[in-house]
Amino acid sequence: MATPLLALDIGGTKLAAGVVSPEGEVTAERIAPTGDDPTPEQVIERLFDLSEEALSRAGLALSALAAVGVSFGGPVDYGAGKVITCHHLSGWEGVPLREIVGERTGLPAVVDNDANAAALGETLFGAACGCQHVIYITVSTGIGAGLVLSGRVHRGANSMAGELGHTHLVPYGPRCTCGRMGCLESVAAGWAIAGSARDALAGGADSVLRSIPLAELSAEDVCRMAQRDPLARQIIDRAGGYVGLALARAANVINPEIIVVGGGVAESGEVLMAPLRSAFQRYIMPEVGEGARVVQSALGSRSGILGAGALAAAELLE
Amino acid sequence: MATPLLALDIGGTKLAAGVVSPEGEVTAERIAPTGDDPTPEQVIERLFDLSEEALSRAGLALSALAAVGVSFGGPVDYGAGKVITCHHLSGWEGVPLREIVGERTGLPAVVDNDANAAALGETLFGAACGCQHVIYITVSTGIGAGLVLSGRVHRGANSMAGELGHTHLVPYGPRCTCGRMGCLESVAAGWAIAGSARDALAGGADSVLRSIPLAELSAEDVCRMAQRDPLARQIIDRAGGYVGLALARAANVINPEIIVVGGGVAESGEVLMAPLRSAFQRYIMPEVGEGARVVQSALGSRSGILGAGALAAAELLE
Repeated sequence: MATPLLALDIGGTKLAAGVVSPEGEVTAERIAPTGDDPTPEQVIERLFDLSEEALSRAGLALSALAAVGVSFGGPVDYGAGKVITCHHLSGWEGVPLREIVGERTGLPAVVDNDANAAALGETLFGAACGCQHVIYITVSTGIGAGLVLSGRVHRGANSMAGELGHTHLVPYGPRCTCGRMGCLESVAAGWAIAGSARDALAGGADSVLRSIPLAELSAEDVCRMAQRDPLARQIIDRAGGYVGLALARAANVINPEIIVVGGGVAESGEVLMAPLRSAFQRYIMPEVGEGARVVQSALGSRSGILGAGALAAAELLE
Repeated sequence: MATPLLALDIGGTKLAAGVVSPEGEVTAERIAPTGDDPTPEQVIERLFDLSEEALSRAGLALSALAAVGVSFGGPVDYGAGKVITCHHLSGWEGVPLREIVGERTGLPAVVDNDANAAALGETLFGAACGCQHVIYITVSTGIGAGLVLSGRVHRGANSMAGELGHTHLVPYGPRCTCGRMGCLESVAAGWAIAGSARDALAGGADSVLRSIPLAELSAEDVCRMAQRDPLARQIIDRAGGYVGLALARAANVINPEIIVVGGGVAESGEVLMAPLRSAFQRYIMPEVGEGARVVQSALGSRSGILGAGALAAAELLE
């Protein structure tokens, strides 16, 4: 394997470190739970423990690697290599993550947010292989998106491109975590799906979801039940429809070849993808829709590691 | 003047030919009305008459020019150099305009739609000078948009990027010229502005617009009266608000440094720009909105010629 890369993934629920080839082959990978609100220092220490374990498994020294890529679960100032903030973990504002990782490893380092990394990962190694213009969206606890245009990550004026999650969608819609109303997240993110189910159950709706304690009810439960429970199906249909509408509007701007849908909620498969595709086809301009495929992520839970590897390969090699 | 360029503009109302420097200086320019539904052959003959007149004024032979750029008023398959269609003129489907212009002039030729050309013109010579990420929108009889990303025109998978005019905006909104309902054009294009005014007057609304015969009432009339007539003001407020909302959604995807607003309706100035900016600020993500200016076109009626010149300079020189 020529010039292996170190790939690091910092997320709200898990941390991962892996050795990845520039062709997207994972030689070794170590994963650990993020834990209960650790400090950035604790996260970084844990991540380098995982890196050492992965390197040892791969039988490689750090010095044998060509570069290191980091996928971070929150907005990143790409040019400065600094974290802007993290919605799941405290204390990350302004952390110079690229410098820290570069110094610790002695390798050229690149840091980007997880949606951008996953978009590039899918383009180089996954469902969008060979495509030039790609929209990647992750439907999970939150909703994020990354764009690959003309084969490169498009980050925009201040690293905020792809903000589909907090794009206004529903006039006078529900209050969003960002403080505004009617964002895509407020009607289709994991937290909104679980909230809709809880509201319906509290309002007396008949559903097998009632067997789950209200406080523990999750979006995964709703997805899982959607095949056989009318209430769950209705909630996922609505969420998928809104994601499809938002993607159609974004596609009319970008004119992509392919749209890749990833994230925990999307892993429920056709339950989400069928209403999503149906709304996408209804709202896309026919001339834009003709050429555009809407597919599920091929990298799945490895999108962080392979996204980080793709970043290192695309931004730092050659 | 080093390496002058020939710039051609084919629009629904006017044709223009000019000699333009790679720095955006117009040495000579000739304009003529398009006339009543001419054939593509007639348009091309007229355009080359105008070119000869412009060259003669500039005291130049064709052989002294470096390249020719064409701004075309309709979708263009950029890779193939062919017109896809024209909504204002008949018979243009599939016309190999790049080949025709290249053969007639003996020069390297480039052809693109008018919104892409104007976006590049504003970026190289106009309101977006020095910017990397630009959204240009033209609000005229129709609504079109062009994107410049990382300093280059972004055309997308099949030359359809920037389709804001026919992006769904208003649930169960008015019927659009494209056959669907609630597109941005159906509530904010020149034809929709004139239609709203006619409907209101037919319904008995009190307005100074009543002094104009209903069949002749145009969007320009409504814009002109908006300073002093409440009905006209309300119609332009609404159109400007919808354009601002559509731009906010597009900007959340693209994260531009600047948004340039051109076209006939936009030439009415703050009458349209004030409600447009207000809606833009209401619907943009604050982090995206912070860095993004919303300004009027600097090229105005010369956006066709200077857009064509910018295309030739950016795509064919060096």
